[in-house]
Amino acid sequence: MKISPALRRRAARIRMLLMDADGTLTDGRVWLLSQADGTALELKGFDAHDGQGLTIAAQAGIRTGVITGRKSPAMRQRARENKMEFIYEGEAVKIPVYEEILRNTGVREEEVAYVGDDLPDLPVMRRVGLAIAVANASPEVKRMAHYVTRAGGGRGAVREAVELILKAQGKWDVMISRARA
Amino acid sequence: MKISPALRRRAARIRMLLMDADGTLTDGRVWLLSQADGTALELKGFDAHDGQGLTIAAQAGIRTGVITGRKSPAMRQRARENKMEFIYEGEAVKIPVYEEILRNTGVREEEVAYVGDDLPDLPVMRRVGLAIAVANASPEVKRMAHYVTRAGGGRGAVREAVELILKAQGKWDVMISRARA
Amino acid sequence: MKISPALRRRAARIRMLLMDADGTLTDGRVWLLSQADGTALELKGFDAHDGQGLTIAAQAGIRTGVITGRKSPAMRQRARENKMEFIYEGEAVKIPVYEEILRNTGVREEEVAYVGDDLPDLPVMRRVGLAIAVANASPEVKRMAHYVTRAGGGRGAVREAVELILKAQGKWDVMISRARA
Amino acid sequence: MKISPALRRRAARIRMLLMDADGTLTDGRVWLLSQADGTALELKGFDAHDGQGLTIAAQAGIRTGVITGRKSPAMRQRARENKMEFIYEGEAVKIPVYEEILRNTGVREEEVAYVGDDLPDLPVMRRVGLAIAVANASPEVKRMAHYVTRAGGGRGAVREAVELILKAQGKWDVMISRARA
Repeated sequence: MKISPALRRRAARIRMLLMDADGTLTDGRVWLLSQADGTALELKGFDAHDGQGLTIAAQAGIRTGVITGRKSPAMRQRARENKMEFIYEGEAVKIPVYEEILRNTGVREEEVAYVGDDLPDLPVMRRVGLAIAVANASPEVKRMAHYVTRAGGGRGAVREAVELILKAQGKWDVMISRARA
Repeated sequence: MKISPALRRRAARIRMLLMDADGTLTDGRVWLLSQADGTALELKGFDAHDGQGLTIAAQAGIRTGVITGRKSPAMRQRARENKMEFIYEGEAVKIPVYEEILRNTGVREEEVAYVGDDLPDLPVMRRVGLAIAVANASPEVKRMAHYVTRAGGGRGAVREAVELILKAQGKWDVMISRARA
Repeated sequence: MKISPALRRRAARIRMLLMDADGTLTDGRVWLLSQADGTALELKGFDAHDGQGLTIAAQAGIRTGVITGRKSPAMRQRARENKMEFIYEGEAVKIPVYEEILRNTGVREEEVAYVGDDLPDLPVMRRVGLAIAVANASPEVKRMAHYVTRAGGGRGAVREAVELILKAQGKWDVMISRARA
Repeated sequence: MKISPALRRRAARIRMLLMDADGTLTDGRVWLLSQADGTALELKGFDAHDGQGLTIAAQAGIRTGVITGRKSPAMRQRARENKMEFIYEGEAVKIPVYEEILRNTGVREEEVAYVGDDLPDLPVMRRVGLAIAVANASPEVKRMAHYVTRAGGGRGAVREAVELILKAQGKWDVMISRARA
């Protein structure tokens, strides 16, 4: 991972890592399981390396959270497993929640990183200090990101974001030995 | 995305976007979950970018719908989530339904785009104004399509079809800012 | 698809197409869904193009069947959907069932094709007229196959086998127009 | 598979093959299925070739086992199917269990191989006679492994580990004919 001086400065300031869910913490597949009663249950595929990264970020003092348009117990359980602090679901428009988080925490915009993959992520990505697009993001999202991950969403993109931030802050190497399964 | 003048003319006329389900809105995997009572439930994997595209198409006034040979609550729920107008399931032969849609809506054949991936899609694709094959379509389907997507079915092919149509109509850029999660 | 004269002769004689399940009709993933009571349910991912191919094979008079070591309602439902005639499950060793099928049907060994991917398939593949290995088969299986598909198991390998046989028999083109969804 | 003399010496001594679960026996996706009551069930995707390899290893007298941080009926059922002797779940730190296994079995460290993919696997990998990283392991894990598989976790990495060991011991070829489905 080559980090330019400008990118390193942005990453060094980050105290909070927010992100989208579908396409960012997953590869963008929305799985629906048909039930005998005519309803459908949703399945999401998360990534073990992303999860390890999020847990390490929390241990290193980075606050983490999800803002997503969908609602699912799967996303909520995964957020708990990964020690995420915030989870906002059913948010068709993300800016109001983003501003609420800023107000409630006192974290400044230049201290926030956001990882996203598609058009509804653009308004938040335009404002944060470090806007990260996953490898499979739509072209509009990649164009305005400060960093595009090599890994796809749900395939290590969030892990890569965590490593970028913690390496810029000189914290990654010490966290390796503290990793827990 | 390079669009030839001839393709642009076809796409500029489209008012309705019809499509197949398995292999087009999914990557063609038909997942079956064994149940303790000896039956099996079906799971389908849709794509978040496709869904965003379909919702944008609907917002832009393009009527959308699915014609599929299988039947599943999963497909019906996804059609609702993506603001699709038509969903015809259990149709082993697709032409009768296609003609019924034309009759009911008054939309002309040159105003219809259809996205498909396999042999049962051929009869409809031969008639519509814009026949689109997904990247993983069978050779027979690709050969007679006006456009073959770079993305695979269930991996952005339908999003690409929507972008092709809305860009040809000069509507894509304005829709970006209206996207909702 | 380039077919050598020797391969064409083998394929032209085929009247029955037998196959393995996991790794052949699926990509080899064995999915287990944990249940609240401590048990697990099995999920299998089949391929729509394979299914279309199997239905076409049955329409064209080729008898089809599965011999597999596992047991699952999912495989049985898929076999029905694809108009397969034989399904033998829970067969740790495949030769006895293979010989039973030969006896019951009167089909001769040179008239049988078998598609497989791993070591338990070798004994049957050594005997049939047309032994086909999927692209992701283990090296031992590929080495002794008459044909190795370009497509992976559960990703079109069986469709490719059907096309090989029906093209060698001059029946593929006429079947295209009869395909049903 | 090219095996260097030094690697062959390590592999020839192995009597026990331990491994991680997520990212090693799976491709690292942690699937969660939302339930109507707000909980979520976990789905894991194992590999048929890995399973065949583990069964062959057990037949060849290699003792096998899993040490994982998560808990799931899916992993336990798969361990049974693959004739694994040990399964330790919910182990955030792996060294205590590793040492318990050594004590209980009398197997020495140079006789143990371990396959892993991420940071919590490092402490065990530093001690065993043969440390194997899967193709998709994090860089820290690959750097300290004696062997990095060409196959990814949940896509044949464990099968490759079994073949490496049994070939180094001159036992692979004889096991091929004994494989059962």
